[in-house]
Amino acid sequence: MQNTLVERLKTGCAEEWRAYVEHEFTRNLADGTLSEAAFKHYLIQDYLFLKHFSRAWALMVYKAEDVAAMQSAVAVLDGLLNHEMALHRDYCTQWGIEPDELEAAPEARANMAYTRYVLDAGMAGDRLDLLTTLAPCVVGYAEIGLECARKNEGGLEQHPYAHWIKTYSDDEFQDLARSVREQMDTLFSARGGEHRLPSLQRLFSDATRLEQSFWDMGLHQSQ
Amino acid sequence: MQNTLVERLKTGCAEEWRAYVEHEFTRNLADGTLSEAAFKHYLIQDYLFLKHFSRAWALMVYKAEDVAAMQSAVAVLDGLLNHEMALHRDYCTQWGIEPDELEAAPEARANMAYTRYVLDAGMAGDRLDLLTTLAPCVVGYAEIGLECARKNEGGLEQHPYAHWIKTYSDDEFQDLARSVREQMDTLFSARGGEHRLPSLQRLFSDATRLEQSFWDMGLHQSQ
Amino acid sequence: MQNTLVERLKTGCAEEWRAYVEHEFTRNLADGTLSEAAFKHYLIQDYLFLKHFSRAWALMVYKAEDVAAMQSAVAVLDGLLNHEMALHRDYCTQWGIEPDELEAAPEARANMAYTRYVLDAGMAGDRLDLLTTLAPCVVGYAEIGLECARKNEGGLEQHPYAHWIKTYSDDEFQDLARSVREQMDTLFSARGGEHRLPSLQRLFSDATRLEQSFWDMGLHQSQ
Amino acid sequence: MQNTLVERLKTGCAEEWRAYVEHEFTRNLADGTLSEAAFKHYLIQDYLFLKHFSRAWALMVYKAEDVAAMQSAVAVLDGLLNHEMALHRDYCTQWGIEPDELEAAPEARANMAYTRYVLDAGMAGDRLDLLTTLAPCVVGYAEIGLECARKNEGGLEQHPYAHWIKTYSDDEFQDLARSVREQMDTLFSARGGEHRLPSLQRLFSDATRLEQSFWDMGLHQSQ
Repeated sequence: MQNTLVERLKTGCAEEWRAYVEHEFTRNLADGTLSEAAFKHYLIQDYLFLKHFSRAWALMVYKAEDVAAMQSAVAVLDGLLNHEMALHRDYCTQWGIEPDELEAAPEARANMAYTRYVLDAGMAGDRLDLLTTLAPCVVGYAEIGLECARKNEGGLEQHPYAHWIKTYSDDEFQDLARSVREQMDTLFSARGGEHRLPSLQRLFSDATRLEQSFWDMGLHQSQ
Repeated sequence: MQNTLVERLKTGCAEEWRAYVEHEFTRNLADGTLSEAAFKHYLIQDYLFLKHFSRAWALMVYKAEDVAAMQSAVAVLDGLLNHEMALHRDYCTQWGIEPDELEAAPEARANMAYTRYVLDAGMAGDRLDLLTTLAPCVVGYAEIGLECARKNEGGLEQHPYAHWIKTYSDDEFQDLARSVREQMDTLFSARGGEHRLPSLQRLFSDATRLEQSFWDMGLHQSQ
Repeated sequence: MQNTLVERLKTGCAEEWRAYVEHEFTRNLADGTLSEAAFKHYLIQDYLFLKHFSRAWALMVYKAEDVAAMQSAVAVLDGLLNHEMALHRDYCTQWGIEPDELEAAPEARANMAYTRYVLDAGMAGDRLDLLTTLAPCVVGYAEIGLECARKNEGGLEQHPYAHWIKTYSDDEFQDLARSVREQMDTLFSARGGEHRLPSLQRLFSDATRLEQSFWDMGLHQSQ
Repeated sequence: MQNTLVERLKTGCAEEWRAYVEHEFTRNLADGTLSEAAFKHYLIQDYLFLKHFSRAWALMVYKAEDVAAMQSAVAVLDGLLNHEMALHRDYCTQWGIEPDELEAAPEARANMAYTRYVLDAGMAGDRLDLLTTLAPCVVGYAEIGLECARKNEGGLEQHPYAHWIKTYSDDEFQDLARSVREQMDTLFSARGGEHRLPSLQRLFSDATRLEQSFWDMGLHQSQ
């Protein structure tokens, strides 16, 4: 895995990457000490995030060059809109957050910053630029999910955030992350090459920094 | 139906609309006299059309303002990419056109003209502009399908183009057309109003004219 | 002026508007007590802001429906890229910030949030949506510039931020703000109508809130 | 010049390129035998073309990664909207075509096909994709202009299309074409590499074919 594009980009912003995947929010989430208020604030914003994240995958369909790439992107898009967001609504209801509240919640600025950065970089650039800004989310959540699971090897029965940890450590999400890493390599071969690395690194580093802010926003329940 | 936005737009370009839905290609298709070569040329181009038509529905997802509208658009998009295009590939195989041939076929200019017009008008404008340029395709094919079926009330058993006629006269496609007409009215209420009518009419008329060229291209097997 | 669209939108988010135009940053800027460090941090970010603001005006050209609207937008775009940004570079040099430093400066998150929000809302919507998200910047700066000038009626000779205050209180910038207000009304007549008000209000309120964060970022020199 | 990206792309579609630059329309234009009706039809459509061509250069500004690239693109854009289109209006007046007639003329389908193809390919891809679809226009007109001038070395005094020939053979336009060729090479180094050649070739070949159709449209005065 060391030589994949994603690994190279992570190495290129190692400090920011650590600040993101080892954020206080994720550490507290792993050991269950994260406050319920912070988690609920995060959950609501994450629902709004998924909406704009879905728009970014719709752009992937729009920007795809062949039918196979379109089908691959629409599978993710359909999964997000018809599966993950529904699960999210259910999960929120368990935490006492009603669907109406979700839809009406004001979007936090850290949320706007990351999602709109992705959408604009993806529109201005090509599919490789778009996927590079999406990657820190998918790949990072897969790492965080695994690390949370590893820290709870004894079992998640009493864990307040068991559902979240299972979602992102499960095979299904790990497979999505693997697929994104592979698509990055494929696109880098087809449309990239070494010369694009500096501008891809800038996109990846910025996106990683914006993901870190997303955890800040959750932790401090900021708008 | 007389007062729907679609009916008003059709009335606003009645001549172009007739030239499109009553085109020689569709009349010959209805009575089975259309040459096999013309039909096959059309089928190949229609497959390429569906690819860019899907990209336009991906734009609908990107441009949607709420989750319900995104889900509605992704249902069409998923239907196109995973159902209609697969059926198209199967149908083409029955006519001796292999999937490889389909993917590799050069795109006819009339095809580029309509699809790129839709995509650009939809990107430059809002969802109502986008849907207005898509509408002549969906609504027109529904009308043509019904008219072909009406002309073959005695049965389609021996008809060389029975499959095509069934597809576009069937309830499923008629429902899609109805849904597009309703979405047009909803969007016209929410984002439109009478002042937008002239610019919407221009989009609808242009798109209708470009659909008419698509039949010309099929009939004359032009590139 | 009370009935212009801009005035209605300001009234619709009166609290956020006040928090933006009467922000501590602008009050300190007016009376000259703003720290030099805060001002310089703001100046650098404002240069990066102008780059993406220019991209938004380029979108206005792309989305324009007629040549006159394209010419009007390109005049602003050309003014930004070839006049205002050059002045900005000169002004920064006076404050000891070299052009190289400007171009290489990392973009603060509050900067990304506002600019990318504008670019995405403008791409997803139409010209009226785009202009509505740009308006808080142009109209707000014109108000702030005038208010700063009013508070310094005795003269700006000794004022550390005299240049800034003159730029935004001068006729040239006031004319730009007037033109934006007029274009908003024209577009609202042509493409809008009362039904669009709720969604336009959301865009305007969000953009105002993001402008407020821009001052926060300057004041606290945050990244 | 043999090894520039543009030369490689031209070689990759040599037949289409010849069909475009040595089109009957351009041969008749060179020797002055082109009918006035055909030329006037072309002139009107070319004005409408310039509008959408300008929108494509506005996209170049939107998609630029640094201020220098934005300034370079806005110089072309400003030249098109405030200089070339004004000259075009004047020139049309000399041929008895009034500005009102120009603005109101319906856009021919061949015009829509090329311009919207450029705009969509440019939006879906990156700046290199966009420039690759614009290049056949700029580089081709520069070649055609020079060839027309070469065939009229004895002088253009009595030539009905002297103005057109001078415009595109003059240094100013030749410099623009040189700049486009250079930008292509720069972008190919920065964002491309050999792996992108097949998809760039497809864009360039399609665009060349669509330029050829533009001459057909002029010659046959088709809509």
